Amino acid sequence: MSSQLPAHVRAELTRVVGGEHVRADAASLDAYGQDALGQGRPPDLVVIPASTNEVAALARLCHEHRVPLVVRGAGTGYTGGAVPTRGGVVLSMERLNRILEIDETNLLAVVEPNVITADLQRAVEKVGLFYPPDPASLETCSIGGNVAECAGGPRAFKYGTTKRYVLALEAVLPTGEIVETGSKAVKNVVGYDLTQLLVGSEGTLAIITKVTLRLIPKPPARATLLALFGDIQAAVDAVTALIQRRVVPAALELVDADSLNAVRDHLGREVVPAGTGAVLIVESDGMQTAVDDEIDRVADACRAAGAMRVSLAANEGDRDRLWDVRRLLSASLKATGLLKINHDVVVPRGRVPDLFGVIQHLRDEYRLRIAAFGHAGDGNIHVNLMVDRTDPQQRARAMQAERVLFERVVALEGSISGEHGIGFAKAPYIGIELSPDVIALMKRVKNAFDPNGILNPGKIFPKAR
Amino acid sequence: MSSQLPAHVRAELTRVVGGEHVRADAASLDAYGQDALGQGRPPDLVVIPASTNEVAALARLCHEHRVPLVVRGAGTGYTGGAVPTRGGVVLSMERLNRILEIDETNLLAVVEPNVITADLQRAVEKVGLFYPPDPASLETCSIGGNVAECAGGPRAFKYGTTKRYVLALEAVLPTGEIVETGSKAVKNVVGYDLTQLLVGSEGTLAIITKVTLRLIPKPPARATLLALFGDIQAAVDAVTALIQRRVVPAALELVDADSLNAVRDHLGREVVPAGTGAVLIVESDGMQTAVDDEIDRVADACRAAGAMRVSLAANEGDRDRLWDVRRLLSASLKATGLLKINHDVVVPRGRVPDLFGVIQHLRDEYRLRIAAFGHAGDGNIHVNLMVDRTDPQQRARAMQAERVLFERVVALEGSISGEHGIGFAKAPYIGIELSPDVIALMKRVKNAFDPNGILNPGKIFPKAR
Repeated sequence: MSSQLPAHVRAELTRVVGGEHVRADAASLDAYGQDALGQGRPPDLVVIPASTNEVAALARLCHEHRVPLVVRGAGTGYTGGAVPTRGGVVLSMERLNRILEIDETNLLAVVEPNVITADLQRAVEKVGLFYPPDPASLETCSIGGNVAECAGGPRAFKYGTTKRYVLALEAVLPTGEIVETGSKAVKNVVGYDLTQLLVGSEGTLAIITKVTLRLIPKPPARATLLALFGDIQAAVDAVTALIQRRVVPAALELVDADSLNAVRDHLGREVVPAGTGAVLIVESDGMQTAVDDEIDRVADACRAAGAMRVSLAANEGDRDRLWDVRRLLSASLKATGLLKINHDVVVPRGRVPDLFGVIQHLRDEYRLRIAAFGHAGDGNIHVNLMVDRTDPQQRARAMQAERVLFERVVALEGSISGEHGIGFAKAPYIGIELSPDVIALMKRVKNAFDPNGILNPGKIFPKAR
Repeated sequence: MSSQLPAHVRAELTRVVGGEHVRADAASLDAYGQDALGQGRPPDLVVIPASTNEVAALARLCHEHRVPLVVRGAGTGYTGGAVPTRGGVVLSMERLNRILEIDETNLLAVVEPNVITADLQRAVEKVGLFYPPDPASLETCSIGGNVAECAGGPRAFKYGTTKRYVLALEAVLPTGEIVETGSKAVKNVVGYDLTQLLVGSEGTLAIITKVTLRLIPKPPARATLLALFGDIQAAVDAVTALIQRRVVPAALELVDADSLNAVRDHLGREVVPAGTGAVLIVESDGMQTAVDDEIDRVADACRAAGAMRVSLAANEGDRDRLWDVRRLLSASLKATGLLKINHDVVVPRGRVPDLFGVIQHLRDEYRLRIAAFGHAGDGNIHVNLMVDRTDPQQRARAMQAERVLFERVVALEGSISGEHGIGFAKAPYIGIELSPDVIALMKRVKNAFDPNGILNPGKIFPKAR
């Protein structure tokens, strides 16, 4: 792999950031060669710039010498978006981690990419403002990564995903130019919307160096409800009833029995009463009177769908414990020791029952353990195929099931990824959803940004044969 | 100009749609050569296709023969986006005007581009759903045009502009391929967000033939408040106070005295009591209790800022009359007989007072009559330079003032257009806001879609020198 990086290029890259801000030892290269997916190749060199100008200088060098350049934020992604596929340079954003501005008058924040999402949320909430996107990894993931992947989270049901909050970006093109897109105004129709094009582009079009985020007033009140159901069907019925009643709470999360059991095993204590087959966590926020009204309607719908128990979080401690269960799901599933093949498919919001039908079919047909949970209100369900690593036949069945899952989701007019992106993990499958003409068009757009193809190669698009 | 369109190409184009669906008489060519801006060149031919396949065939022909192709919806735009700059073909969408689907289960609608915005709104409200974007021209403009321009309107303050509601598009590339972007799922991160790239691209990247729109539950209650102020400063103070109190009503519209007088003259009756220097129209919607609470806070803030009178619309008739005044502003200003040079600048929402300072400066410095009104909550103000057509010196001063307005708005970190787009009317000015590198990048994106540059030439980008 070091053939990717001739000694003189390595020296030039090192000169840009200074010797103390490069890593080339085996342990570092290994660490920077992995994200939450646990796959990927080590880079040849890690560079850690301190400024936009340094980023631009690094990009120019990689462009000129045609060296693969992969941008890394907090490395919490699930599809390999932040790791190399064939060596080259990892550009780590870890030193660009300051909140530059929280502007209470104009309701916005300006941040460097490596600000941790929860840190920003706490900072803005202190002054009565609110940044809604809340991916499960919010205590460890970064805003830059959230922008690159268009992160969602439970509150996306009411508040939308990251894209709805990005007003402006400073970015470095792979050819080295520093560009600014958008503005601090909440409306802007001057030229093409490059801001929204960069959001969710998985680090393949440009290197994001500064993010201007729209904030909203912090909702004055909230309430969190837990509803326990005997089986998944009853919980799904409750979701459908809520959609039909046109109730849009802040979050509407569903967790199935396999997922609950994994959390129980991981924590070493019961998290729900025995016999619980599924739970809904519903959060309402807004003005107190509206919250009270809404949560009543949610409780009614849950009871009508056959909930065994409906309870309200009595205080913030209660609430945090509820959400901890939800946020611990991924870690708990990983702790099973099984291989967790993690998908984040999404269907039109009324088709969640059909999606759970598909999941049950896959369990039966391919004899697989599948833990499913997620953002039921959005139709965005995390489907985790839990595979015994020592059983190659089971693994082969999981690969088959995976493809069938994607095909069925697209047949339901959904999408194969609602949050995690494509990276290299799902690149072989995008042809299930996108036509050859669309893929060709996306490649031409990629080429308009990155003529030498140096930025995050091997991602999104299937390998040419 | 007919040199643009050789006889054999004209014959081939005519064959696609049938002779009864082309127009080539002088009156038609004149009519299709203008939009609400009142400028533009006539096309050589108007073609009126009935299907996506016909659109694709027309695009292919224009691509092959390098004939300029301009897509036209309802022709209500203010920047010349739907009219030719140098002959060629106008492709009118008027026959693609059906609501294909209103899907109550999945909360979405699928429409052809020439559905009138208000017609869609009425249709979805009948089943308890809501499509928020409400440009002032909503009774005459079309969804396709709204998507092409990313239309806003008063309710964008709370609900966002058109882009927030577009889930998926069917579009024909200028090279003739039919592509589908996005999906019916509310989250989708598969590949680049071409949907959002097409929204607001002003008909320069692709021809939109089908639009899938996200709908939301219709708010059960609403209230509309009118506050009268002695002068514009007091009204602006009230807006600032509302932003500071973190009140986000559905709409927060400001109208200045010049604008009010124009409506009075146009209607031939007083619309506000003598001595009114500015008004705010504020609408709140949601659950009844929340609406009551919010409108109380709005009324308090208006009174604290010195409102002469604060009144609530007692019924829907009252409400409609209030909004009629707002929607008649453009027509009333036009009816003055003066040339109305219409801008839609936008500043960060807390900087509306600074923007009104700029407007006053322009009135004084360039001795101009300027009527200003608009979406104060968004910082998006319609600034109308009202010019005596018979006074070339006044017109020259207006041209100077226009440039200063744009420069000041960009200095305030705003944008030269929040709703109307660039078209050809503002193309000479985009360099004030966008850097040469950004413009070059946008041109490369344009080229990725339209290698022969046939689609809506002469728009957005300044003429090369």
